[in-house]
Amino acid sequence: MSKILVFGHQSPDTDAITSAISFSYLQNRLGKVTEPVALGEATDETQYALDYFDTKAPRVVTTVADEADEVMLVDHNEAQQSAADIDEVSVLAVVDHHRIANFQTADPVYYRAEPVGCTNTIILKLYKENNVEVPKDIAGLMLSAIISDTLLLKSPTCTEEDEKAAKELAEIAGVNMEKYGKDLLKAGTNTADKTADQILNSDAKNFPMGDYTVRIGQVNVVDVQEVLDRKDELLKEMASQSADNAYDLFLLVITNVLESDSVALVHGEERNRVAKAFDKDIVEDTILLEDVVSRKKQVVPQLTKELS
Amino acid sequence: MSKILVFGHQSPDTDAITSAISFSYLQNRLGKVTEPVALGEATDETQYALDYFDTKAPRVVTTVADEADEVMLVDHNEAQQSAADIDEVSVLAVVDHHRIANFQTADPVYYRAEPVGCTNTIILKLYKENNVEVPKDIAGLMLSAIISDTLLLKSPTCTEEDEKAAKELAEIAGVNMEKYGKDLLKAGTNTADKTADQILNSDAKNFPMGDYTVRIGQVNVVDVQEVLDRKDELLKEMASQSADNAYDLFLLVITNVLESDSVALVHGEERNRVAKAFDKDIVEDTILLEDVVSRKKQVVPQLTKELS
Repeated sequence: MSKILVFGHQSPDTDAITSAISFSYLQNRLGKVTEPVALGEATDETQYALDYFDTKAPRVVTTVADEADEVMLVDHNEAQQSAADIDEVSVLAVVDHHRIANFQTADPVYYRAEPVGCTNTIILKLYKENNVEVPKDIAGLMLSAIISDTLLLKSPTCTEEDEKAAKELAEIAGVNMEKYGKDLLKAGTNTADKTADQILNSDAKNFPMGDYTVRIGQVNVVDVQEVLDRKDELLKEMASQSADNAYDLFLLVITNVLESDSVALVHGEERNRVAKAFDKDIVEDTILLEDVVSRKKQVVPQLTKELS
Repeated sequence: MSKILVFGHQSPDTDAITSAISFSYLQNRLGKVTEPVALGEATDETQYALDYFDTKAPRVVTTVADEADEVMLVDHNEAQQSAADIDEVSVLAVVDHHRIANFQTADPVYYRAEPVGCTNTIILKLYKENNVEVPKDIAGLMLSAIISDTLLLKSPTCTEEDEKAAKELAEIAGVNMEKYGKDLLKAGTNTADKTADQILNSDAKNFPMGDYTVRIGQVNVVDVQEVLDRKDELLKEMASQSADNAYDLFLLVITNVLESDSVALVHGEERNRVAKAFDKDIVEDTILLEDVVSRKKQVVPQLTKELS
């Protein structure tokens, strides 16, 4: 019998990678034979967490059917965010905290989604429901994911449950959440030595909205201007990738993690719909998104509504 | 603020109706304002359970957007099995045990699906996870759903979890599961005052198999002979409906819920393939299906294999 592969979405962020690790460990303890893998390289932020808690990055794959019949998805469900050949394998389980779309199964499935800030908050519940103790290193990785997804509990996506889970995990991991959290977030904000493609796509996803395909990347920074200084280079790359991949819209949300504000770079025919969705003008290809830090809660629903 | 409506699928069975009641009660205890409704009248079986546990049948609706902005779905997720205007409301939560298809949300959602035999088995877990006690009457209704979906724990769809849940609920409800279960199943088996079309199609589905369209109905009885006495009338109706709808095969699986056996009435050119699939002769248009109670697990796969 081949191993069951467990993985998060393409362009993996800290939650996508660490939830594969934490959910795979839980499943193995429950008697399954699983391996966590990743659909992309760890970001600097994720690597900081992996190094801090002395854990090897999961093996990177792009297809899965060549080595597995069965898979488990974490931190995503939409086919276009998943393995390229996801249609050729059987999905046994999903643990996620996003909307549900472009997902379907032939058979009944285990599906656990809750509208919380982080997949690992749900996974912590699953450990408890199954009476499995969270090892110290895995607790640290799970905590890192909550810090990452909620920007140290400051994002509007953060729920009381995320907060409680983070405190509990910090205790098990033996770290000071505030100090570790700031170090972790800073580790992910270096853009100076990144290519335009890396800035755009390190944490980017495709969203089908109505008849349109919208690509939305997000980059966390402590200095927005550092990215805006490269606007021309970024817009050129967005135009080229949009042409290659038939994106109708491409947004790069540049989020200041210390001030909890964003500015978005916008490319595409439908850019006026973006202005409409946020009731704000687009000035020199940028739109100011005040108090916006969450793509999922403060960008995707507004755009979906406008484009559907 | 309008109430949140909670409901199961169209043509509701006992699980669809009672899981709306049990999940709505739980949500109300957790501080939401919800009302259980139904997308159709209670069957005789469901009405027996409602009467026994002194509960009013939920109000029947076909549309929901006229009175609610938000809904919760139980025992289904596919849009074509739901309220006619499901696309106009926001789905807050789903609890289900079926495959996932034709379901999508704009926002993150609470989704809880597990591959067990009955939705109420999952709902019992939710009561426990939230430390809410199950009232006696609701325990009785939840038990009724498990008995109905698993034919008193005898169907191959029944899992260990369903069995454990049923025992626990029978204790809370204060009934003898075996005795109550038989009475409940019997209450749903009256065919005497049903038309041939009602017997054939109350629970019938089309299955494409290879190049063929196979229609398979199922009816639960305690006395198979009562249905077989109307064989000529039923076969005539099957022939007429097959001609009208281009069915290559039409099976009516008549299941004795007390003895966990079935007999199938068979109409169609490809009847010999049915004989082959089950390695049994067809005698006077009927075939004996020993130990068969589940269309999904014990009829469809065998026929699909033979016809594909």
